[in-house]
Order: sequence, then C-alpha cells, then structure tokens
Amino acid sequence: MKTREIAELVGGDLSGDPKVEIVRVADIATAGDGDVAFYEKMDEGFSSNASCLLVPQDSSASNGTLIKVENPKLAFARVAAFLHPQKHRLTEIHPTAVISDSAKIGQDVFIGAFVCVGDSSVIGDGCQMRAGAKVGDNVTLGKNCLLHPNVFVEDGCTLGSSVILHTGVVIGADGFGYVRGENEYVKFPQIGTVVIEDNVEIGSNTCVDRGALGETRIGEGTKIDNLVQIAHNVQIGKRVVIAAQTGISGSTVIEDDCVIGGQVGMGDHARVQSGAVIGSQAGVLPGKIVRRGVWWGTPVQPLDEYKRQNAHMKSLSRLKDEVRRLASLIERIKKDRKS
Amino acid sequence: MKTREIAELVGGDLSGDPKVEIVRVADIATAGDGDVAFYEKMDEGFSSNASCLLVPQDSSASNGTLIKVENPKLAFARVAAFLHPQKHRLTEIHPTAVISDSAKIGQDVFIGAFVCVGDSSVIGDGCQMRAGAKVGDNVTLGKNCLLHPNVFVEDGCTLGSSVILHTGVVIGADGFGYVRGENEYVKFPQIGTVVIEDNVEIGSNTCVDRGALGETRIGEGTKIDNLVQIAHNVQIGKRVVIAAQTGISGSTVIEDDCVIGGQVGMGDHARVQSGAVIGSQAGVLPGKIVRRGVWWGTPVQPLDEYKRQNAHMKSLSRLKDEVRRLASLIERIKKDRKS
Amino acid sequence: MKTREIAELVGGDLSGDPKVEIVRVADIATAGDGDVAFYEKMDEGFSSNASCLLVPQDSSASNGTLIKVENPKLAFARVAAFLHPQKHRLTEIHPTAVISDSAKIGQDVFIGAFVCVGDSSVIGDGCQMRAGAKVGDNVTLGKNCLLHPNVFVEDGCTLGSSVILHTGVVIGADGFGYVRGENEYVKFPQIGTVVIEDNVEIGSNTCVDRGALGETRIGEGTKIDNLVQIAHNVQIGKRVVIAAQTGISGSTVIEDDCVIGGQVGMGDHARVQSGAVIGSQAGVLPGKIVRRGVWWGTPVQPLDEYKRQNAHMKSLSRLKDEVRRLASLIERIKKDRKS
Repeated sequence: MKTREIAELVGGDLSGDPKVEIVRVADIATAGDGDVAFYEKMDEGFSSNASCLLVPQDSSASNGTLIKVENPKLAFARVAAFLHPQKHRLTEIHPTAVISDSAKIGQDVFIGAFVCVGDSSVIGDGCQMRAGAKVGDNVTLGKNCLLHPNVFVEDGCTLGSSVILHTGVVIGADGFGYVRGENEYVKFPQIGTVVIEDNVEIGSNTCVDRGALGETRIGEGTKIDNLVQIAHNVQIGKRVVIAAQTGISGSTVIEDDCVIGGQVGMGDHARVQSGAVIGSQAGVLPGKIVRRGVWWGTPVQPLDEYKRQNAHMKSLSRLKDEVRRLASLIERIKKDRKS
Repeated sequence: MKTREIAELVGGDLSGDPKVEIVRVADIATAGDGDVAFYEKMDEGFSSNASCLLVPQDSSASNGTLIKVENPKLAFARVAAFLHPQKHRLTEIHPTAVISDSAKIGQDVFIGAFVCVGDSSVIGDGCQMRAGAKVGDNVTLGKNCLLHPNVFVEDGCTLGSSVILHTGVVIGADGFGYVRGENEYVKFPQIGTVVIEDNVEIGSNTCVDRGALGETRIGEGTKIDNLVQIAHNVQIGKRVVIAAQTGISGSTVIEDDCVIGGQVGMGDHARVQSGAVIGSQAGVLPGKIVRRGVWWGTPVQPLDEYKRQNAHMKSLSRLKDEVRRLASLIERIKKDRKS
Repeated sequence: MKTREIAELVGGDLSGDPKVEIVRVADIATAGDGDVAFYEKMDEGFSSNASCLLVPQDSSASNGTLIKVENPKLAFARVAAFLHPQKHRLTEIHPTAVISDSAKIGQDVFIGAFVCVGDSSVIGDGCQMRAGAKVGDNVTLGKNCLLHPNVFVEDGCTLGSSVILHTGVVIGADGFGYVRGENEYVKFPQIGTVVIEDNVEIGSNTCVDRGALGETRIGEGTKIDNLVQIAHNVQIGKRVVIAAQTGISGSTVIEDDCVIGGQVGMGDHARVQSGAVIGSQAGVLPGKIVRRGVWWGTPVQPLDEYKRQNAHMKSLSRLKDEVRRLASLIERIKKDRKS
C-alpha cells in the first residue's frame, strides 16, 4: 500500500513522498522502514523512524511523509484493518466436525476440528467456527460471524452478522434464579433466549445468560471485554463498551452509547441511561437509575461528588485536630470566665 | 396441563375454569393464551392476558382463572418444572467420545461428541455429559448429573446426584499455593480433592479448586453463579447461594443457608456463620467471623452500621462547615473578651 | 522414602528413627502412619500422629521422628514434590489429535484426545497437552510445558519451559481496544503477541490478551491464579504472585517480586514497583506509580494510612457528637455573656 493510497483511504492530507511502500502498522516508538504509525497530540514532536506518520490537522511536523487527519488514531485503526485483515480461513468443513443433518450451513463457511452444530441451527454465509466451537439446537448465526475456539452458544440463541465471540465465551446458559422453598431452592424457569445484534464483539470466557422468560439482548456494535458476566434478561443498547470482569445483574438495562469500566458491579433492575460513563470498580445498587454523566464509587455517585468526598475523607485527620483545638479553646474560655 | 391439574400440583385454591389448557409459563406482562403467569403482591391489580394466574392468598383479584397459593413465585417455579422439563437427551454414547476401558458407565446415560472419561471413573445412571465435557481418572458422578459442554472435572473428584455444571466449569484444578524459596516460588502440594454434594448447580466458567491436602466441599443444594472462584479447602454448607464473580479464598468456611452477593471477596480462613447475608462487592478479611445477619461493605460490617457510616460520609461537607462556623464563633468570643 | 532421605533432601537435622518409611505428605491434624507433616511455629506443641514432622530450628519438640529445618513449610513443599510428582503421562499422540504437517513435535510428548496443533507450531520435548488443549499457528512451547484440558494458545504466542496453563486458560486473544468513530467503534489493531517465560503457572479460565502492537509479557517464575484478566501490552516481571479475579488494564507494568491480592483492579499505564504488595480488592488508578511497601483500598494507599482513615471513618459518629457538644457549649457561653 502506497502512502498516497493510505491518504485516500483515510481522507487525509499528504505531505512528502506519495509512493512510499507501507506494509504494516506499528507503535510510533518502534516503527521503522515500511511502517505507518500515528500520534494524537500536536506537540509530540516525535522523530520517529516510521516511513509514514498519521498526525493531527494542527500538527506542526514537517519532515518525513506525513498524513494530516482529524483523528489520527481512528485513521490508524482503519489503515490497520486494511494492512492486517482478520485471518482468512479457507472454506472447509473439517472431517471431525459433528453437524446435524437438519442444520443449514451457508456458503464460504469455515468449520474447524471438533466443532458441533446442533439440530435445525443455521450458520450464515462466511461464518468461521474455529476448533472446538459448539452451537446447540435452533441457533442462528448471521453472516460472517467468527466463533473462536471452545465458544458455546446454547439452544435457541440468535446472533446477528459479523459477531465475534472470543475463546471460551458462553452464550445462553441458564440464568441464576431460584425460589426458596421450605428446605431447598427451586429453580426458577430459565427458558428465555439471547439475542446478539450485528457487529458485537465479546471477550474470552465472558458469560451471557439466557433470559428467564424473555430475552437477554446485546445491541448492535456493542463491545464487551473478557470475563464479564451478563445475567438473564439484561438489555444492553447499541455501541456500549464494557471492560473486563464487570458483572451486570438480572433485568438491568444499559442504554445506547454508555461506557462501563472494569470490575463494575450492577444490581438487578438498574437502568444506566444513554451516554453514562461508569468508572472501574463502581457499584450500582439494584433499581438505581444512573443518568448521563461520569459516575464513580460504591454506591455510584457523580465523579465530582466522589472526588469531593474522597478529599473530605483524606482531610478527616485534620478535621479531628481542628475539633480538638476548638474544644481546648472553649475549655480555656470557660476557665477564664470562672476566674 | 389443565388449570385443575396445576391447582393440584401446587396445592392452590382454584377459582374460574378448571379445564383451561395451559402449555407454558410466561411473564405476566407478555403472557397470553395458554400461558400461566404469577404475581407476588396482592395489590398488583394486573389485567393480564394469561389464561391462568397464580396469585397470593390475600389477593382481591376475581376475574379470570386464578389459583391462590401461599407463595406464587414458588408455585410458578414448580409448574414451570413440569411444563418445561430439562431437555431430555436420548441414551447415547457418541462414537467420537473417548472412554477408558476401566470406566464404568451407568444406565440411560447420554455421552455427547468429543467427551472424555478417564480411567476408573464412574458415571452414574441418567447422567448427561454434553459435547466436549471431560472427566479425568477416578472421578465419580452420582445419578442424573448434567455436565454442560466443555466442563472439566479433574482426577479424583466426586459429584453427588443431580449436580449441574454449566459450560466451562472447572472442578478440581490445583489450588493456588506456593512457598517462597530463596529465588523462586515452590509449589505447595495440591493433592487433595473436591466433593460436590447432591443438587448443587454451578454456573458457567466457575472454578472450584481441589484441596491442597484435604478436600474442598460444596454442600447439598447449594447454588453458585457464573465466574465464581472457590479456592482450595473451602467448605461451603448446604443451601448456600453465591452470586456471580465472587471469590472465596483458601480454607474459608461458609455455613448452611448463607446468601452471598456478587463480586464479594473473602480472605482465607474466614467463617461465615449460618444464615448470614453478605451484600455484593463486600470484602471479608482473612480470619474474620461473620455472624448471622446482613453485612455490607469492605471491610464487611452490619448493614445498618454501613448505612450510618455512609450517611456520615455524605454529611462530611456539612460537618466541616459546622466546624468552621464554630471556629469563627470562638474567634469572635475571644476578640470580644479582649475588647 | 526413608526419614533419613527426607532429612538429606531438605538439609535438615534428624532426631529419632532414620529408617521410617514415608509415603505421603499430610496435614498435621489428619496425618498418620507413613505421613510426613510440618508445623511452622515452635509453640505448636502438637501431638501429631504423623510418622515424621518437619519442625522449625527452635522447636522444643522432642518425641517422635523430627527433622529440624529453617523453613518447615518450604521443606514440606520440596518433600511433596518428590513423594507426589506431577502425574506422568506416557508418551503418546492420541489418534484423534489434529496436528498440522508443518508442526514440530518434540520427544517424549503427550498429546491427548481432541488436541489441535496449528501450522508451523513447535511443541518442545516433554510437553503435555491434555484433552482438548489447542494451540494455533506459529506457537512455540518450550520444554516440559503442561497444558491442561481446553487451554487455548493463539497464533504466534511463545511459552518458555515448564509453563503450566490450567484448564480453560486463554493466551493471546485480541486485546480490548477500539477507537470511537462517528457512529461505531472501530477495532484498534490487536496484532502483537504474548510471551510467557519459564516456570510460569496460570490458573483456570484466566485470560492473557496479546499485545495491540507490541507484546504482553509474563516474567519467569510468576504465578497467576484463576479468572485473572491480563490486558494487552501488560508487562509482568519475575516471581510476581497474582491472586484470583484480579484485572490488569492495558500497558500496566508490574515489576519483579510483587504480590497482588485477589479482585484487585489496575487501570492502564500504571506501574507497580518491585517489592510492592497490594491487598485484595484494591484499586490502582490509571497511570499511578505504586512504590515498594504494602498498599490497600481504592484508590490504593499505604496500608497504615488506609487503616488510619478507616479508624477515622469508624469514629465519625463520635466526631459529630463532639462537634454538637462544642456548638452547645459555645451557645451557652454566648448566652451567659449577654446575660
């Protein structure tokens, strides 16, 4: 890919040699010959060895081959998608795969070793199911889904197109619901389903439980990290980002365009409104409504309140000293008045 | 199932048509023809479209087909178990399964594709091992256990009857124990075992480590959610409920009938006494004894203390203002006295 | 193994019968005939039924067969390694394994059922890949690695020698990085790799993501527990210990000889300096530098500060009372002065 083609791809403004051959993306610190790198802040006056740099519009850099763009990191990601496309696996159904006669397998599908596809399931065109991935019965995968090794999708769940499930993801296992009987817990029915919309990506060993009665849903373009727990009947909107090890309890709703940090815990039946940002390790109480804005702490509170409270706590020692000082002043006043 | 039969099953008091055909359970909001639903509070004067409603004894509802019961949710769960029994898999040993000659496989067993059963292991009558589930050597499964896909049970572990292990559960891996040597960590022996009693259910990707020297034990009827960590030598009693992503360190004891929220962390050698309830994200220090009652926070404290302390923290700003006011009052008094 | 041989192995001082046959290690409370046990504190005047006891140098015990050593627990671990060596699996390549023609398999290797080895991967001498373990293309395993069932190592990752990966571990999946575009998240390239050095052990269902552009590295002799999340480009030093369910965000550095508790969360680009100890459930903010010493809480602070602050918080109620008392004293003084 020539630098000129890169500039066209990202709609950028090229200065320098338009014919440099670029073969890979690289970190600006280690980039060298044939590499394209980026920086985000105009004052990072890097003397990088990259053959081409994606830089912000207001960058004052002038030496080397530069492409000025509005969002260099985004441009870099788009170039990377071209230079390093997802691994292409040739169309194949591995002889060890166990595929139900009633399953429908689309065109240009890769099915690896030890894959299982259950009864009446549909695998869309261009899907890749890597070694050991399994789908149960009546599962539907849209087009171009990528199931990494050992993924499991339980009976009756539905995936849209271009969904990526990383290794060990479990979709559609029973939710965690019991009713206390006299001397035992009786399982509450977990007979709903999971719907995952287009362009969702879910990290390794994350679990998305099926709805108890209705459905658990993950909206279009949402990205979920590793080891996340999504309980039954949770509704996650579009373009939500959820970092690793966060847990979301039953029936909680996260609206579009929220950003949730890592190790956040949410109680059941909470609602996170569109545009809310929740910091790592925060705790959202059951039923709580979290409005647009930045939130932090347990129980969750607006970031500036959290910071203020934290500052207060840090100054508790001084406050105590001050109270002690006042007490002794008052003692003195009282004594003086008596004398 | 006729409404009359449902009333009999749950020991309820039927009013309305005893012959309505009920085919499934449903959420009260979406229920329709052929559905049974429930509500719990007598004043939820729902006009549901369900063909039959399970309602509390003191409900004033009168129209439609109603069944009055003491605990509608429990009754609903029992009806669901009848109308939606666990999927029945026909007796089968899939030709791809790898089963040791010395293993003993009971009657009416389902063994799916790519299952492994190691030497001298015993699979009880009625067990189901789904695709990719694996048990090592000398493992014993009681009757009617259900191992979902990709479960692994390590050598020497023992499961009672009707144990359910969801996808990706790991039972009996080495515990996390090392002794610091001069310039390395030496592995402390992890040669104990895991015993899981009857009617235990364990969620997806949860890990239960084997005892270092003795055993890790999970008591009868206990229910554990997804992504939970149970360390070596932990002893969990009967009918304990543990929500997702909680972690329990080595040798900690949880007695019968405790309820543990999600993302709780417990240090080693703690003891949670029978009937204790621990809120989500709480932290139990090593060696701590947690008594009956409701607990919250890190370090864990009784819920009302936690709430009081939280309220105090919320009012810190006002407290500071008050101290400042007192200080200026005193200043004034001192000045006045001098003048 | 005779008691004399044990004394030699651990460099200890034997008193009592040098010819007792020892066949296993055991907990001191349950140890019996043929068992060796240990205790650590000289005043644990145990009357154990163990055939041999490893005791501290300053122990006053005198009856039975004793071996005095500097570090009884360490000695015990070393004896255990002899008496209970890791399970030896005979050299075998299971006929169900799917191994690329271009892979290189070393000597004395065990490859179990349903194992996959991708193109150009190298499996070192003495490695064991248990049932369902999978490595992608261009993966290198050093000597004597042990991959437990269902482990997955993604394309291009490198393991040193004697690495142990427990069941369900995922090495080298894509890191979690996206760039927000106008109406979507665009994947930031995740094309780096993972390097795991010698003698690392990683617990069940833990995830170690590949570097975005560079590498994620785990240093020699480091031990990681179950369900831990290691994000892209994290650098972990040598002999680091990380307990269960901890999460470490992108590009964070943990230097040698740190000890990290369970459920700790670390933001990105933090640095934990050599010798730091971080308590369970602590939170390290992005970019934070954590110095040598013991740290606790969220945000993380030195343990003694944390304790002091906790004590202050506990005494908030008293502080409020005191402020109220001072306020009424001042009121009284003002009133007296007016009268």
